[in-house]
Amino acid sequence: MFFASDNAGPAHPKVMDALVAANQGYAMGYGADPIMDEVRAQIRDVFEAPEAAVYLIINGTAANSVLLATMTKPWETIFCTECAHIHEDECNAPEFFTSAKLTLVPTADGKMTADALRQKILGEENRGVHGPQRGPLSITQVTEKGTIYTLDEIRALTATAQEFGMQSHLDGARFANAMVALDCSAADMTWKAGIDTVSFGGTKNGALGVEACVIFNPETAWEFELRRKRGGHLLSKHRYLSAQMQAYLADGLWLDMAQAANARCAQLAKGLRKHTAVEMLFAPQANMIFFQMPRAEHKRMLDAGAVYYVMNGDPETGDPDAPLVGRLVCDWSMTEAGVSQFLDLLHG
Amino acid sequence: MFFASDNAGPAHPKVMDALVAANQGYAMGYGADPIMDEVRAQIRDVFEAPEAAVYLIINGTAANSVLLATMTKPWETIFCTECAHIHEDECNAPEFFTSAKLTLVPTADGKMTADALRQKILGEENRGVHGPQRGPLSITQVTEKGTIYTLDEIRALTATAQEFGMQSHLDGARFANAMVALDCSAADMTWKAGIDTVSFGGTKNGALGVEACVIFNPETAWEFELRRKRGGHLLSKHRYLSAQMQAYLADGLWLDMAQAANARCAQLAKGLRKHTAVEMLFAPQANMIFFQMPRAEHKRMLDAGAVYYVMNGDPETGDPDAPLVGRLVCDWSMTEAGVSQFLDLLHG
Amino acid sequence: MFFASDNAGPAHPKVMDALVAANQGYAMGYGADPIMDEVRAQIRDVFEAPEAAVYLIINGTAANSVLLATMTKPWETIFCTECAHIHEDECNAPEFFTSAKLTLVPTADGKMTADALRQKILGEENRGVHGPQRGPLSITQVTEKGTIYTLDEIRALTATAQEFGMQSHLDGARFANAMVALDCSAADMTWKAGIDTVSFGGTKNGALGVEACVIFNPETAWEFELRRKRGGHLLSKHRYLSAQMQAYLADGLWLDMAQAANARCAQLAKGLRKHTAVEMLFAPQANMIFFQMPRAEHKRMLDAGAVYYVMNGDPETGDPDAPLVGRLVCDWSMTEAGVSQFLDLLHG
Amino acid sequence: MFFASDNAGPAHPKVMDALVAANQGYAMGYGADPIMDEVRAQIRDVFEAPEAAVYLIINGTAANSVLLATMTKPWETIFCTECAHIHEDECNAPEFFTSAKLTLVPTADGKMTADALRQKILGEENRGVHGPQRGPLSITQVTEKGTIYTLDEIRALTATAQEFGMQSHLDGARFANAMVALDCSAADMTWKAGIDTVSFGGTKNGALGVEACVIFNPETAWEFELRRKRGGHLLSKHRYLSAQMQAYLADGLWLDMAQAANARCAQLAKGLRKHTAVEMLFAPQANMIFFQMPRAEHKRMLDAGAVYYVMNGDPETGDPDAPLVGRLVCDWSMTEAGVSQFLDLLHG
Repeated sequence: MFFASDNAGPAHPKVMDALVAANQGYAMGYGADPIMDEVRAQIRDVFEAPEAAVYLIINGTAANSVLLATMTKPWETIFCTECAHIHEDECNAPEFFTSAKLTLVPTADGKMTADALRQKILGEENRGVHGPQRGPLSITQVTEKGTIYTLDEIRALTATAQEFGMQSHLDGARFANAMVALDCSAADMTWKAGIDTVSFGGTKNGALGVEACVIFNPETAWEFELRRKRGGHLLSKHRYLSAQMQAYLADGLWLDMAQAANARCAQLAKGLRKHTAVEMLFAPQANMIFFQMPRAEHKRMLDAGAVYYVMNGDPETGDPDAPLVGRLVCDWSMTEAGVSQFLDLLHG
Repeated sequence: MFFASDNAGPAHPKVMDALVAANQGYAMGYGADPIMDEVRAQIRDVFEAPEAAVYLIINGTAANSVLLATMTKPWETIFCTECAHIHEDECNAPEFFTSAKLTLVPTADGKMTADALRQKILGEENRGVHGPQRGPLSITQVTEKGTIYTLDEIRALTATAQEFGMQSHLDGARFANAMVALDCSAADMTWKAGIDTVSFGGTKNGALGVEACVIFNPETAWEFELRRKRGGHLLSKHRYLSAQMQAYLADGLWLDMAQAANARCAQLAKGLRKHTAVEMLFAPQANMIFFQMPRAEHKRMLDAGAVYYVMNGDPETGDPDAPLVGRLVCDWSMTEAGVSQFLDLLHG
Repeated sequence: MFFASDNAGPAHPKVMDALVAANQGYAMGYGADPIMDEVRAQIRDVFEAPEAAVYLIINGTAANSVLLATMTKPWETIFCTECAHIHEDECNAPEFFTSAKLTLVPTADGKMTADALRQKILGEENRGVHGPQRGPLSITQVTEKGTIYTLDEIRALTATAQEFGMQSHLDGARFANAMVALDCSAADMTWKAGIDTVSFGGTKNGALGVEACVIFNPETAWEFELRRKRGGHLLSKHRYLSAQMQAYLADGLWLDMAQAANARCAQLAKGLRKHTAVEMLFAPQANMIFFQMPRAEHKRMLDAGAVYYVMNGDPETGDPDAPLVGRLVCDWSMTEAGVSQFLDLLHG
Repeated sequence: MFFASDNAGPAHPKVMDALVAANQGYAMGYGADPIMDEVRAQIRDVFEAPEAAVYLIINGTAANSVLLATMTKPWETIFCTECAHIHEDECNAPEFFTSAKLTLVPTADGKMTADALRQKILGEENRGVHGPQRGPLSITQVTEKGTIYTLDEIRALTATAQEFGMQSHLDGARFANAMVALDCSAADMTWKAGIDTVSFGGTKNGALGVEACVIFNPETAWEFELRRKRGGHLLSKHRYLSAQMQAYLADGLWLDMAQAANARCAQLAKGLRKHTAVEMLFAPQANMIFFQMPRAEHKRMLDAGAVYYVMNGDPETGDPDAPLVGRLVCDWSMTEAGVSQFLDLLHG
């Protein structure tokens, strides 16, 4: 009954096996290992982008920060939602790497609308040298609220960005979960929809710690490499990143894991809907649910061993009837039985 | 015959086993995993420093940069040697994280003398608000030239630093190799000798990729944590760092590995001394040798399958009698037979 | 009829005379000129703060940025309004100098309420090392909308900040205009109301280009000096800053000039109120008015030689009846006759 | 007898008159004042560079830092001498604005040789992504030691830089003094000699505080403007910078002043040569002399009212016979009689 985060579960055994298998003999460091050549080919294949620049990095904060730094000048502002991970959960890392600022677009459900984006872009207008200049758009797919942009919605956002000469970045910490939910290709969800760069997540979906940075226009590839190194993010024993990503992508393991996580989440959602005191805040579309129920119910669940975050208050104190918001996240390793156990307890 | 770098060999099987063992069930992320509690205790024990703040990070560049950033103000200058890794091999990462500058102290053999340090410190004097202010000292042990500071030498350097109100950092990418060579304790080589913070290397000595940052005065611990996060260096699935370090330290594995690497290096050195055309540039004291021999000899060795870096020219072209400098590095995984094969080939 | 900005008018002749008078013989540079000693005493006197650290700098962007940098850590966020000059009009200078970010508090009339501040502070809570940490509060007095905080309102804001361990900065680009309007002392409006540092404006109120940075707790004085120098903001021939500020403060010239500017603004407001098609957006309290009137009326005024900014559209094109917002700013040098000329034209 | 610095004397009365004259009526701010149009034309004329981008800024540190920031990537290193003002006297401002580092080229007399430059450039080679990349060359003319590069020497340096794809910056804090000494044109000393950007000094040569930044290839002009603003270096009442520069350049005033300063320096040098205990360290070529004489002699001069810096010790204490180095700087305002008074005292 551990639903605290999709970074709390184990790596998939196949990923671990690949790591063990890679641990033989000598290999050139810093990305010159032969496994990386395979990974580059795999990712270009997945994205149908034979020219794309592909790099590995240890986590999403680093992926987002280094990519955004190659896309942003220090005097610009990056457009993202109010609840974007790059704004809320990275302790100013994007500001550190870019030296720029973020403009927060309001959102009802984690998703930015093209209209809201346009309004903010225009709001940053007219000040010439005095105000921040327009930098890139950054959207998160799956969003931080567990919702998913349709392909049309992504296209509308990137078209709006392009209209103002802005590039678009996709924070895909849960890329696979979105792809599975949309039943689309990686290309559909990215460059075919106007996305310029992708943080392609592995960590939350069954790896130990690896993300790919994918740059469709490879002109800034060398700058990316220098910025990655300068950020302390170029690994000497790089093969241990490569091996994770290789196994992650092999034989569709990544999609199978995302499928499993999403299925567990759907099972959870179905069960939550049957509970009269529970209200889901957003329609869960991938592997994450935000739900509201009385403080006393949260306390009962947590006391009974369920593990998840209550976002806006302390279940231990205060009005037992007052509703609090909980967050449930599923990863590939969760079992149907585990989810049932949680639901039985809830309905219990 | 792979002597290119100690980051090219495999991780020790015990380290890998620990990683596999850690890959069970759920664990809180971001350093809150239970293995990290053990690691913290292990390192405090190794350093005889029960109050020390201890953090893990992926590589030496990150360890050095984040530690130095907690020790340095943006208007200060960090004193290091001309050949310091933080100056030559980190693509301005220390400057990025500290916003400060480096003052380069000349060195004959990779080691800074207290006199040379004093001269540079005084050279930065007298300019009040106009010039850079004095920041910390950073020394590397084992040095980038394969030499080792004696405990007296470290004490003389840190005493000089303290005289000017400066703190001292030790870049211990090859910490274990130095400790084994000096036959001293970790405490002897660090806080007992005036060192304030340590980048305690694991990666080059049998881990996949992990370094410990040790801060003897834990006042800046929270700042370190924030800077690590802001640099994108806080891992979500942190247990995979913890597990590496736990196994690395358990039962003296780290010292055994360093011992093995140093022994292979001594074997190499002994063999090199017997070759009349070979000259070693510095007395090899740990696991790294810089040696000079004619270009033609380098070419012969490399053509025959020896792998190592030639530092100052191309063995393929030019005067075959002209001497070039090669670098040989040994890691824990090298065998006596492998070294013998290299030497046999050399003596051909 | 020039109402575009209070930085467009001339410096007061007495300020210019002081500059000419200072231009005799030799003077030590970089703030060691004897006039600066007088200025320091004057400002400490004005603020009833005998221990305050006092520095001069060329403009408000620099004053705000260097002060905020001494108050903010790179992983923190500065709380200001959505329309704060530091957010909208400094091209990321505060981000450049602090390496931090800004949290925007919504505002109806340019003034932040303590409740809105508290809500934003709490919104940045609960994320530990992952989110930005709480940095200082920065408020602008006179606000960017021409409104003025009462002393009670300032106290409520700084008390809220203090409750969360935050310091408070006051951007006083129009400090004198506010003081005159509130009929209070400089101490009342700052440290007695919980303000820790002040950007004390001179430029917009009759100087050529000089602001004082006032730090009530002088502990960070040396850091300020180093940051000012590092930002390229320490003038060698500093006497020309000192002389401006000396004359500005002498015999209450600064208050007289603010009084004059405010009086012209009141005259303008009175006239605008009589025009049926004009609506003032905020009650003008100092020297700046935002007013709405039909596009055609703006066009008529501008065509007739009135100079001011229309903020949200082009008077030359579009629906002549659609209202647009204009901004009128008065400085010390405006005459009653000049304002009357504008009003006569308006009432046509 | 004030020889401490050329930033200690008064501004030329004609410069001050221009300032007073500019203080009439309203003028658009931020560089849009009509005087700036004249200044732009004047400087393009002086440099015979009709396309050059021209900006004004308050001092040399800012001029150097903002120009270098437009020429340098954060992962690069700037090549300058060990005694460069940007290294020694700007409290890390260049590092702040560029985020890069400096590589120090050794120098005997303040001048860099093309050979020494080449050696350092090659020394930064061969490390690929690991080391700093090559950024621009920055030389100072007149150098910090009072010496002057010949046109051939400048050409040799910029040719070396170009060979490695590097741009060249000239720190011309004493530009006029060098031009007068070389009897060449501004174009000869800059773009005709391979210089890409110039910090064109006014402050030390009779202005209150103004430097021009001249960029011969105007492609980075907009970036310069944004960086200047972001550094807090765009003045609202910009006309007061423009007026200074306008008067400075009008009718060759700037060259007359430099001529006067150089002449006083030559007079000083002639007198010093006659003193047996005095040794000049470098052949004085412009308006600055470094000379060595016994501590007791320094003490005698300073006690008698001469004002200058003793660079390497305290004249008040220690061996009276030990030589110390003094620095004498002349500005436009020094009189022949004043210099004679100093020399009479010396020969006393």
